[in-house]
Amino acid sequence: MTADELFGNILKKKSFLCIGLDSDIDKIPTVLLDKEDPVYEFNKAVIDATNQYAVAYKPNIAFYESRGAEGWITLKRTVDYLHKNYPDIFLVADAKRGDIGNTSNLYAKAFFENMDFDAVTVAPYMGEDSVSPFLGYKDKWVILLALTSNKGADDFQYHPGTENSLYKLVISKSQSWSDHNKMMYVVGATRAEMLSEIRKTVPNHFLLIPGIGAQGGSLDEVVDHGMNDKCGLLVNSSRGIIFADNTEKYAEVAAAKAAELQELMEGHLREAGLL
Amino acid sequence: MTADELFGNILKKKSFLCIGLDSDIDKIPTVLLDKEDPVYEFNKAVIDATNQYAVAYKPNIAFYESRGAEGWITLKRTVDYLHKNYPDIFLVADAKRGDIGNTSNLYAKAFFENMDFDAVTVAPYMGEDSVSPFLGYKDKWVILLALTSNKGADDFQYHPGTENSLYKLVISKSQSWSDHNKMMYVVGATRAEMLSEIRKTVPNHFLLIPGIGAQGGSLDEVVDHGMNDKCGLLVNSSRGIIFADNTEKYAEVAAAKAAELQELMEGHLREAGLL
Repeated sequence: MTADELFGNILKKKSFLCIGLDSDIDKIPTVLLDKEDPVYEFNKAVIDATNQYAVAYKPNIAFYESRGAEGWITLKRTVDYLHKNYPDIFLVADAKRGDIGNTSNLYAKAFFENMDFDAVTVAPYMGEDSVSPFLGYKDKWVILLALTSNKGADDFQYHPGTENSLYKLVISKSQSWSDHNKMMYVVGATRAEMLSEIRKTVPNHFLLIPGIGAQGGSLDEVVDHGMNDKCGLLVNSSRGIIFADNTEKYAEVAAAKAAELQELMEGHLREAGLL
Repeated sequence: MTADELFGNILKKKSFLCIGLDSDIDKIPTVLLDKEDPVYEFNKAVIDATNQYAVAYKPNIAFYESRGAEGWITLKRTVDYLHKNYPDIFLVADAKRGDIGNTSNLYAKAFFENMDFDAVTVAPYMGEDSVSPFLGYKDKWVILLALTSNKGADDFQYHPGTENSLYKLVISKSQSWSDHNKMMYVVGATRAEMLSEIRKTVPNHFLLIPGIGAQGGSLDEVVDHGMNDKCGLLVNSSRGIIFADNTEKYAEVAAAKAAELQELMEGHLREAGLL
């Protein structure tokens, strides 16, 4: 998917919501547990109920990998279901991979060829040759970790008062690796005040923003500091939507939660003059 | 496995060799391709032929993940085979994972519970709370990326002439997360000259050293700069051993290559007065 197509979908859906399919088998409604592939059934129902409010879905791979080969089968079935039924969805593998070049090639193959993800999150620690293998696919994206939403981000990525924080170096140096048509950055909503500064370096890039909801980030602040003239934001919510209810009404409640966020997002898009 | 047990195995085998099971299905001997699980058959034969010369094996997970659910089945079978037949082998999942805390828990589960690896390589970019979930398992290890062997290491990890390179910060800060009984560091053999400096900060830790052989690092230099009084080194070779031959003699040739390295290592252990 191109950046223009993604912006087009944002305008069509009046939403820049990404739904995190962090489908922990220990948290899905017990009514599903007698199904042959409970997590797939859960994903399918959540996707069917929420897709009109979202432009993107983002399975975090850990929730699938922790179930071994079975989890990978569930993941592939989920990806196939999404592409077949909702071809305008942007599909992110939240994998945080990164290895030396010839090995990163194989991770790229896993997510872009074996499964048809549109984007993969990549950890920048090992530098350009660990990231570039993911950039060799037409209309596929790298979403590079910059400033994450967790407490540990302070250990290396960000030092208050330091001018040359690592996350700034990651963003500036990676500008020469690709452009805003193939690369996005992860910036946690819990660091919204840093978005204005980041926008000076990457005015045109999409940013993937986790951390609203359960982690305490604010949508208003994210929009205030981070929106650009083509929206430029994918804001993710996971647990706040998919695990809002664990009775048999889980999909209905997930839809209501996604609709709430979509409505807020529509308001922001109007305020910004994009609708 | 404890640090003392690992050192005991090094003395017993007169070797600190780790063999990388980077078992690319496109590179294994064609004679195996009509088997039901060719990569497993390859791993099994290589392990049977080489285990007397090695204290550790290290599958890089990308080579398995790139084959989807099938690859995960091969990986699990390989791990089970190793533990059943060679219980004194130290088994490293070269996964380079790392995510926010509750998600890293699931990666830890994948490698330490579903599969009984002794250690996982972890990327430090997201900080302490992304690493600590891996530290909660008795006698299991985190091997933290510090200074990797690839060119891209210069992008963020290491800046010549800078006093506070990121890799130094990673090593020093992570000292408070755990100790040399649960944590090791990855330092590329291509950066052997930096090992003396690193040893000032971590005199007692084991270091996992990739990059000899195909990547050009030197065993002599690694030993000169990095060996401590309990060896403190696991030196990895992958392609140079497992793909040294691709005829039906592949296992025999792999054994010969592993034996060459073991002999050199035995010499170094004697020189250091450890044997």
